[in-house]
Amino acid sequence: MEAYKVYEIKQSVFQVNDNEADLLRQELRQQHTFLLNLMSSPGSGKTTTLTRTIEKLREEMRIGIMEADIDSDVDANKIARTGTRVIQLHTGGMCHLDAGMTRQGLREFGTEGLDLVVLENVGNLVCPAEFDTGAAKNAMILSVPEGHDKPLKKYPLIFQVCDALIINKIDVLPYFDFDLEKVTEFAHMRNPNLEIFPISAKTGEGVDAWCDWLRRQVRN
Amino acid sequence: MEAYKVYEIKQSVFQVNDNEADLLRQELRQQHTFLLNLMSSPGSGKTTTLTRTIEKLREEMRIGIMEADIDSDVDANKIARTGTRVIQLHTGGMCHLDAGMTRQGLREFGTEGLDLVVLENVGNLVCPAEFDTGAAKNAMILSVPEGHDKPLKKYPLIFQVCDALIINKIDVLPYFDFDLEKVTEFAHMRNPNLEIFPISAKTGEGVDAWCDWLRRQVRN
Repeated sequence: MEAYKVYEIKQSVFQVNDNEADLLRQELRQQHTFLLNLMSSPGSGKTTTLTRTIEKLREEMRIGIMEADIDSDVDANKIARTGTRVIQLHTGGMCHLDAGMTRQGLREFGTEGLDLVVLENVGNLVCPAEFDTGAAKNAMILSVPEGHDKPLKKYPLIFQVCDALIINKIDVLPYFDFDLEKVTEFAHMRNPNLEIFPISAKTGEGVDAWCDWLRRQVRN
Repeated sequence: MEAYKVYEIKQSVFQVNDNEADLLRQELRQQHTFLLNLMSSPGSGKTTTLTRTIEKLREEMRIGIMEADIDSDVDANKIARTGTRVIQLHTGGMCHLDAGMTRQGLREFGTEGLDLVVLENVGNLVCPAEFDTGAAKNAMILSVPEGHDKPLKKYPLIFQVCDALIINKIDVLPYFDFDLEKVTEFAHMRNPNLEIFPISAKTGEGVDAWCDWLRRQVRN
């Protein structure tokens, strides 16, 4: 006998935006702009990872960054300091971007001539995973302090929709019960094709392998 | 001149559920059940904090736990092992609970005779802050690895709607650039009435002060 009851709450219908996303993806492919949708929890080091990535790739491709946030500009400020083109999108309280919102942002940004646009999605791993933004590829960042049991726990869907998983903050591995082999195993149970990149955005360790993967996607 | 453009995306209208929440709050008060809505990011130690809290208060009040999650039972399992009454709510992909969903969960749980029900809301700090669940009080957990600049950054709203802020994982303070004074200052800029409790759910440090606060709320 179960020690507790499980109750399924009837959910509202999610906006079906798959057609809109497919259309946007096709248009971006025609203009040779690669859109990467980057998702993570707050505090996982998304902006620092982006800054490192920009450093590595800026000489070989034209990069633009779309920062999505509820209402602040902290991340855009940091990115702008690298000299990269950046736009800050305010979602006014929305916890994710859908394809229509992404299209609005791209139009306002003006992405003609850019090889790579990284959409830094709103900082959580739940809602952004539900909505196809129209990006060519999806990536997520999981940081060591968040724990290696996360793939089985809070957000199964995001591991399924992502093509790449960055495991950030490996420099603090000694201070946490975080098992890199286990997280790899768990993540691959959710998605056998997931590419996994352990990095430290702080020290730069592992960033080359991640950038190699991203470079191949953009040139594809 | 700004180094980047800020663009406000038109958001969908949020469901207005304030009336429903007020009605639920009133009903719970009449039956002398105190509902606490507990919010946090994944990995902040919410379930461990709850387990500690249950240990301290179980002898003096009847406690029930409602775990809300997208689709897993990991947290309910842990709580059930403490011998506490627990129900697992599955939101089927929804990133938050509104008052209607909370009411469904409470009805299914059967809360008559309980002094304290803790709703462990879905694990993110964005969406749950938007929706009043009908709880008497709201609390959130911020953990040291998430950083002290968070109140200014990713989720300003949650600091405004919360009555208590638990700062967890103070045992790893030496390994992070986390300034307890700064986070207090930032959080109080958002909400001067916020009660702040630095704790380590792992070692038990600071848990008494948090439980004293909670005890006063329940008895009020």
